[in-house]
Amino acid sequence: MNYRMILYLLGWVLNIQSICLLLPVAVGVFYGEGQWKAYALVMALSLVCGILLTLKKPKRTVFFVREGFVTVALAWLALSLDGAVPFLLTGEIPSYLDAVFEMASGYTTTGASILTNVEALSHCSLFWRSFSHWIGGMGVLVFLIAIVPLTGGHIMSLMKAESPGPSVEKLVPRVRQTAVILYSIYISLTILEAMLLLAGGMPWFDSITTAFATAGTGGFSIRNASIGFYQSYYIQGVVTVFMVLFGTNFSIYYLLLSKRPKQALKSEELRWYLGIYALSVAVITWNIYRPFHSGHLFHAFHNAAFSVATVMSTTGFAINDFNQWPQVSRYLLFILMFCGAMAGSTGGGMKVSRLILLFKSSVREILSIVHPRGVNIVKLDKKRVGDDVLRGTVSYFVLLILIYVFSVLVICFDEFDIDTSLTAVAATMNNIGPGLGLVGPRGNYAMFSPLSKIVLIFDMLAGRLELFPMLVLLSPQTWKGGLSVIKRRISWNRKSM
Amino acid sequence: MNYRMILYLLGWVLNIQSICLLLPVAVGVFYGEGQWKAYALVMALSLVCGILLTLKKPKRTVFFVREGFVTVALAWLALSLDGAVPFLLTGEIPSYLDAVFEMASGYTTTGASILTNVEALSHCSLFWRSFSHWIGGMGVLVFLIAIVPLTGGHIMSLMKAESPGPSVEKLVPRVRQTAVILYSIYISLTILEAMLLLAGGMPWFDSITTAFATAGTGGFSIRNASIGFYQSYYIQGVVTVFMVLFGTNFSIYYLLLSKRPKQALKSEELRWYLGIYALSVAVITWNIYRPFHSGHLFHAFHNAAFSVATVMSTTGFAINDFNQWPQVSRYLLFILMFCGAMAGSTGGGMKVSRLILLFKSSVREILSIVHPRGVNIVKLDKKRVGDDVLRGTVSYFVLLILIYVFSVLVICFDEFDIDTSLTAVAATMNNIGPGLGLVGPRGNYAMFSPLSKIVLIFDMLAGRLELFPMLVLLSPQTWKGGLSVIKRRISWNRKSM
Repeated sequence: MNYRMILYLLGWVLNIQSICLLLPVAVGVFYGEGQWKAYALVMALSLVCGILLTLKKPKRTVFFVREGFVTVALAWLALSLDGAVPFLLTGEIPSYLDAVFEMASGYTTTGASILTNVEALSHCSLFWRSFSHWIGGMGVLVFLIAIVPLTGGHIMSLMKAESPGPSVEKLVPRVRQTAVILYSIYISLTILEAMLLLAGGMPWFDSITTAFATAGTGGFSIRNASIGFYQSYYIQGVVTVFMVLFGTNFSIYYLLLSKRPKQALKSEELRWYLGIYALSVAVITWNIYRPFHSGHLFHAFHNAAFSVATVMSTTGFAINDFNQWPQVSRYLLFILMFCGAMAGSTGGGMKVSRLILLFKSSVREILSIVHPRGVNIVKLDKKRVGDDVLRGTVSYFVLLILIYVFSVLVICFDEFDIDTSLTAVAATMNNIGPGLGLVGPRGNYAMFSPLSKIVLIFDMLAGRLELFPMLVLLSPQTWKGGLSVIKRRISWNRKSM
Repeated sequence: MNYRMILYLLGWVLNIQSICLLLPVAVGVFYGEGQWKAYALVMALSLVCGILLTLKKPKRTVFFVREGFVTVALAWLALSLDGAVPFLLTGEIPSYLDAVFEMASGYTTTGASILTNVEALSHCSLFWRSFSHWIGGMGVLVFLIAIVPLTGGHIMSLMKAESPGPSVEKLVPRVRQTAVILYSIYISLTILEAMLLLAGGMPWFDSITTAFATAGTGGFSIRNASIGFYQSYYIQGVVTVFMVLFGTNFSIYYLLLSKRPKQALKSEELRWYLGIYALSVAVITWNIYRPFHSGHLFHAFHNAAFSVATVMSTTGFAINDFNQWPQVSRYLLFILMFCGAMAGSTGGGMKVSRLILLFKSSVREILSIVHPRGVNIVKLDKKRVGDDVLRGTVSYFVLLILIYVFSVLVICFDEFDIDTSLTAVAATMNNIGPGLGLVGPRGNYAMFSPLSKIVLIFDMLAGRLELFPMLVLLSPQTWKGGLSVIKRRISWNRKSM
């Protein structure tokens, strides 16, 4: 393991964190809130640590996949642990574990909160929560790749570990340029949404934070009633559309921008994504329009369209309490939590493309019995999908289910109803935020035991990083060589003493 | 497709069914119940159909895996549809769909009932229900192989399709002899249990039916309170032990009988099976002994040992209402439903060996990131597991989850609580019987809509036959060639007219 290189990269991550903290400081100063000092202090400390770690670039920049995964996992842990400190210092979240939960929820774009009254927070803390979504949505290391000139052919493994989806494609041959293009699209769409919201009469501060939270598909709102606070079909409609847009693979936008609309629309994943979205909206509209909207079809459609978008894009905003809906709608939202958005978007969950691959490889298994001698190839977008990608996808699914099942078991020790336990884990692991039962749109995560909160923090990070980085970090095998290196050094030091 | 051969085998299955029906007829005559006539009528009709189909042995006995799977699926469907008729004729179950549900539940050794008062049934119907478990437990086609001299090298595909577990091993080189050995062990253990129950003061009829239901890991009881009716630690203890025994791979007994106990005890799956069992019993005992047994540790242990055995072996007997237990115990039983028993036993569920393989192949995936160049082999019982077996296991898991998720969606349209919907499908698909909520040990399946019942019948059959036979049966690809054959014949007939 190249420890020096890992520390060097972690140093850069801390540098970026301290630059990001400048914004809440500015917001605090602007609104004349004393809390800005807490942010300034953490900013300064992060910068000092970051600069110390990045003073000297390591000579040996050899970097393997394993190191990439460990770096990404450690970076996200560091961001959450460090970014949580201001909440503690301002006293707005008195428990450090709760603060870390809130911050991990922010960075992983989950949007699950332990706060019962969000509106009591200062502007700078509200801004920091929403902004963490925006940073986490695209990924910190992707940002790092975009701005820091890193050499070595293994940078792709960093991006691979941090970017969602079964396979990462470079839009252009150079990794750095790909990162720059992705960030440009991200920034443009965010600005566009904020302006459209402003045009609908939303206040400045609300527009910016809502745009951040939508862009990262996070879901933290600065209002207790979430987007339900803004009683306007226009505003809620704009948010709905942008949730769907940010759940779309960004390479689609790149193709559209490079004037290749045909190629963009041919994407099989896009068709399935929109298909599943439309079908789910139709079923839920049909299911709720009589009992919940007294036959008012458009109102039911509006609510269904918003809620399906919020769950599929894994944002987690709310305009209604879908926890009260009939079982069909509730269960459909529950399974959509796992489905998630498109690969290469800022959304979480399993991703639609994985679902397609799982479905196709299952069909292949059945066909291999029907035609044992036939050659059954799995294709996506008319291209053959390699066996390694298929195996990776299936393994991902198995691991997801195993981690899910065991996480729920731990949560069950808190003895809440089964709706709450099942959906609390589903909503954190797939980075949505609100679930059903006590963690529904009107609830929060405050009541869980510390052990459950730790498990849920792990699930949020594991979900955002697509399982493997966190699992590699926790695997004893990863550290086997490393520990012997440390032991050797200790014995060497003893000898030289 | 070799249609003649399929029909020939189905004929044999009907012959066997009619022989089996002789027993309830005898029971009816013995108890002087008029219902025996219904059984005699169905027996006669089945025999006529069976004999007609088996009159002439097809010349072409070529038989592929596909035909094997289709035959098995059709055989089990035929058994359920045919075996359900007596219930309808006696008027004991007035709806044919309900009768098919009950019968499919019997043959698949599920033990889920639509009856609200079991004790109102005649002796011959009670006997038939329990006996169907016994037939279904070991498999009808395995029985067929044991008694009918079938030639051709593809008989193994029949056994493969019907026997549970990721890979079927022959105990001895000849398939037929393997089948005979398996049935001998099965019969001996059943007789042993019946005698032990008799010794505990259980009436004759109860002992025999209980032994049938335990042996097949079915779970139909002739009492409304199930095994809870017999308030004796001895009787409930015997049933507990035999549930665990019938959930054990029968090849273990073969090894013990051939005086190879060391080899038998080395089985990794056996260790995991007993390990999971012991751990679950410990957790549940700890979880329930204070709130439910006022600190009476032995009583709690007795109840936990019985309930975990009933769920893991997928039998489905009950001595208590575990639906009332705390969330941890309820959820643990829910996940144990999927775990199931050992491969090569009469139990259902995923089977412990599949769980081991899933776990090991997931670890391999993580290790392949840590050591990309290392050779990571999955081993079971110190033997390398082939990639095809691993792929099959993982595909099985993916299909299981997909079918599960969609079945629950259909059930949700009945608008019962989520406990009921989630566990009704889990308990039928894994062939257990009782679930939680409204389908708990005190409940039944009567209240579901016809559509839900059809889905649950499909799930029972799919679960018992390990998914693929039912999926191959439903796959349009299977019938593509066949339909064109039929079309050609029709056009040929037209021409010749």
